[in-house]
Amino acid sequence: MLEEEVIGEGDYVLIYIDERRTYIVRVERDRRFESDKGVLELSDLIGLPYGSRVELSTGVKAFILKPLFHDFFMKYKRRTQVIYPKDLGFIVFLSGISSGSRVLEAGVGTGFLTTTLAHIVKPNGRVYAYEIRRDFYENALRNLKISGLIKYVDLRLGSVKRAEEELEGLDAAFLDLADPWNYIETVYKVVKPSASTIFFVPTVNQVEKTALALKEHGGFTDIHVYELLLREYQVKENATRPRPFMIGHTGYIVFARRILLE
Amino acid sequence: MLEEEVIGEGDYVLIYIDERRTYIVRVERDRRFESDKGVLELSDLIGLPYGSRVELSTGVKAFILKPLFHDFFMKYKRRTQVIYPKDLGFIVFLSGISSGSRVLEAGVGTGFLTTTLAHIVKPNGRVYAYEIRRDFYENALRNLKISGLIKYVDLRLGSVKRAEEELEGLDAAFLDLADPWNYIETVYKVVKPSASTIFFVPTVNQVEKTALALKEHGGFTDIHVYELLLREYQVKENATRPRPFMIGHTGYIVFARRILLE
Amino acid sequence: MLEEEVIGEGDYVLIYIDERRTYIVRVERDRRFESDKGVLELSDLIGLPYGSRVELSTGVKAFILKPLFHDFFMKYKRRTQVIYPKDLGFIVFLSGISSGSRVLEAGVGTGFLTTTLAHIVKPNGRVYAYEIRRDFYENALRNLKISGLIKYVDLRLGSVKRAEEELEGLDAAFLDLADPWNYIETVYKVVKPSASTIFFVPTVNQVEKTALALKEHGGFTDIHVYELLLREYQVKENATRPRPFMIGHTGYIVFARRILLE
Amino acid sequence: MLEEEVIGEGDYVLIYIDERRTYIVRVERDRRFESDKGVLELSDLIGLPYGSRVELSTGVKAFILKPLFHDFFMKYKRRTQVIYPKDLGFIVFLSGISSGSRVLEAGVGTGFLTTTLAHIVKPNGRVYAYEIRRDFYENALRNLKISGLIKYVDLRLGSVKRAEEELEGLDAAFLDLADPWNYIETVYKVVKPSASTIFFVPTVNQVEKTALALKEHGGFTDIHVYELLLREYQVKENATRPRPFMIGHTGYIVFARRILLE
Repeated sequence: MLEEEVIGEGDYVLIYIDERRTYIVRVERDRRFESDKGVLELSDLIGLPYGSRVELSTGVKAFILKPLFHDFFMKYKRRTQVIYPKDLGFIVFLSGISSGSRVLEAGVGTGFLTTTLAHIVKPNGRVYAYEIRRDFYENALRNLKISGLIKYVDLRLGSVKRAEEELEGLDAAFLDLADPWNYIETVYKVVKPSASTIFFVPTVNQVEKTALALKEHGGFTDIHVYELLLREYQVKENATRPRPFMIGHTGYIVFARRILLE
Repeated sequence: MLEEEVIGEGDYVLIYIDERRTYIVRVERDRRFESDKGVLELSDLIGLPYGSRVELSTGVKAFILKPLFHDFFMKYKRRTQVIYPKDLGFIVFLSGISSGSRVLEAGVGTGFLTTTLAHIVKPNGRVYAYEIRRDFYENALRNLKISGLIKYVDLRLGSVKRAEEELEGLDAAFLDLADPWNYIETVYKVVKPSASTIFFVPTVNQVEKTALALKEHGGFTDIHVYELLLREYQVKENATRPRPFMIGHTGYIVFARRILLE
Repeated sequence: MLEEEVIGEGDYVLIYIDERRTYIVRVERDRRFESDKGVLELSDLIGLPYGSRVELSTGVKAFILKPLFHDFFMKYKRRTQVIYPKDLGFIVFLSGISSGSRVLEAGVGTGFLTTTLAHIVKPNGRVYAYEIRRDFYENALRNLKISGLIKYVDLRLGSVKRAEEELEGLDAAFLDLADPWNYIETVYKVVKPSASTIFFVPTVNQVEKTALALKEHGGFTDIHVYELLLREYQVKENATRPRPFMIGHTGYIVFARRILLE
Repeated sequence: MLEEEVIGEGDYVLIYIDERRTYIVRVERDRRFESDKGVLELSDLIGLPYGSRVELSTGVKAFILKPLFHDFFMKYKRRTQVIYPKDLGFIVFLSGISSGSRVLEAGVGTGFLTTTLAHIVKPNGRVYAYEIRRDFYENALRNLKISGLIKYVDLRLGSVKRAEEELEGLDAAFLDLADPWNYIETVYKVVKPSASTIFFVPTVNQVEKTALALKEHGGFTDIHVYELLLREYQVKENATRPRPFMIGHTGYIVFARRILLE
């Protein structure tokens, strides 16, 4: 039997009380976790195996789990509209990146995509991420530290235009900008031939402008535009159905491959 | 300037003629690529940089690209219903796996999920993949060799029940089986506490049975059921719209986290 | 030029202030309409043509419109889950009913479907509507009076089973019941051969049971199951996109045609 | 017991063999219905009650049903992209029209919407329908005769601009045109204040232009844009699921209410 992994001081844990009550908390000796369902002394968790069931002060039960990388999103301060899991998964898949990839990101925002990219390219790959607004930059820095993935990210304050001087031969590029059509030449310069490039935009007008600009540039092919809709289901014996509300729209994903200009 | 990566003998390349004509082809000296748009001597590609534009015998142009891992799906022989990209991306995201993860897969089928998992966990992780039907097993083996990812996969002919004896402490489990509720105890035994487990099923009845069996077992929490719908858009200046046809259904994704039974 | 239709005392009007502020109000001499955007003396509306723009006490503008039949839903007290417009339109279309049709409804609930059916079959058709719960029955009666369509409805307190004795030769049947499979024989008896029958159910389990019961009964054919998803778009120049939230699920529509049992 | 309605010579009947084999056929004495499942002498149907089961020459069974108004769409020759049932039902619902309504239609095309409108406004209402192309006009005329609804339609060859001289005080307007923004003033002139106006357009660019033109005109309010997605389900005991393919896009519905310009 494998030795069980136990909770240590300083670890982040996921406290799961029920579907609506899940929390990421750092285990510290003199801290107490408080919720409307009861209180928990965090020092009591030290040495417990992950997956354990504990009781809150009220007798309500909770599970103590090891967080997945995306559970940390709960702790992220949101300064911008974020890219949602349904889109993050597909963006990474399409891009074809994996451990060791060196990638460009522009428009870091809250850092959900940065985190996801870092998680996939680690430990030897790298995310070169540009953010032009200082407040977003600092917030993203804080967020990435929580997830523990900052060491795989080169977070840079400034316009992605700077990448033209600073980077070359990257494996993929990801742009979440209001005017991505202004940075197509930048992407062309910093990614390898054959590299995948992905744009995330919320409006249909941006979709059209981005796709047309890619065609006009000439340095990209295999252009595709996607949108994902996510439905969640509630399962009850003999009464299973989709949830009554859903996110109706997040954004569109524009994909292209970089080629060699004549 | 970085040296450009050039096409070598034995490489697989992606020949992109137009949206409906994309091909994965192995570059061999005495082979010729033939399509309804024209012919190409593959030996002419050797030494060209990736991303190059070439002309077919007819004068029609094509781009020669380095394939992404999922481009190889085009070369896979399909023996079963496959899991689609929209679902693969989200499944990997939810699972939280990354480079180095050791994961269980049951129901390999054509191998799209196996390939995706191997691509993410490489180079030091491993996919332990069970397939009960010999014909599927052999076909998947052939497919995985084409993608070059077989070395990260431990493909096993037989029931996933065997995993109870053969494996432990895995980081995640992925089941694409007709009756996943019969293998919940197996998953419980072979994955770590806190591990994510994911089930892919095509019918609503399987969704209900799987989710209820997970609840009843007691060793899982945070159960969620998802479905993704993918829309593609066709962009034309001043005439942008979703494509007229779409895939209406592939399957449902059931997610759960493994906890410790009392 | 046609004479313009003017607002009379006792008329219901639709006061449109902005997208989120639309109200159905009855014009009475000594009543005042109050909203967070200002106040309006309703007697001031008498004699104005429909479509007029008026000013609230605050100077905020509002349009006074003649309500469409479904605008009255705003005034309906909801005692149950309602059937939504997206489903109501399709249900009526599928059923093929029109002015003069005589139809069965079971499970009146709040009365949205009853109202829609009455609106379509008027002036010479009739809706025979059964509701088993007295509180729903009385609420629906109140609601239908507001819409002015009660005169085309025969609202009956009791089980739809009673229809077997009370009705025959109807053109269509509409069931919004928790257990419609228990009333298939009733429907068979009261509708004409070839009549369309429509079931509205919220869960996938009810879909399966209903469709299988229809097949097993033998008196129905051409069974189809539908679900509609409605997206709304927000239009802004150069920034058009779907709304961020949407209704994720209301219910499923099961359609069948009545045939002759051997 | 009601007397059963029987099939007469000259009637159109719906022959239902199975889900993929449904046909609208006119019963004539010396005609024979032929399908890949067998042959039927149509004279044998005369005098049978609707809903009867008959046997084709091969022993395969078929049901003989009275068609619903939309079953005739099967017999319509399609000269253009049509408006689909999912959209037709919602368009009619939103418009609020019913028996007796007098309505404008522009861009008749194949005539699906014309047929649906005629079916709803009959017997005393009227559809004033403009079609600019002679070939579409003649085809629509032929189609509407088959459905038996031509007597409620005033089908006019020419631009809807002519309606400015020819019509006034209509209850609603429906435009299925490539450039509806050029006809907003026409609609304003011919419909009543408070009337609903509905535009059906396939591209997002047309949505934006139409909605912005309505705002700019000033004579319309309560502008909404909708899109419907229809899923069909296949029911099998213990294996119920959405159908694998679906229509991904037909068009967008723009709704507005006509007000009085200052």
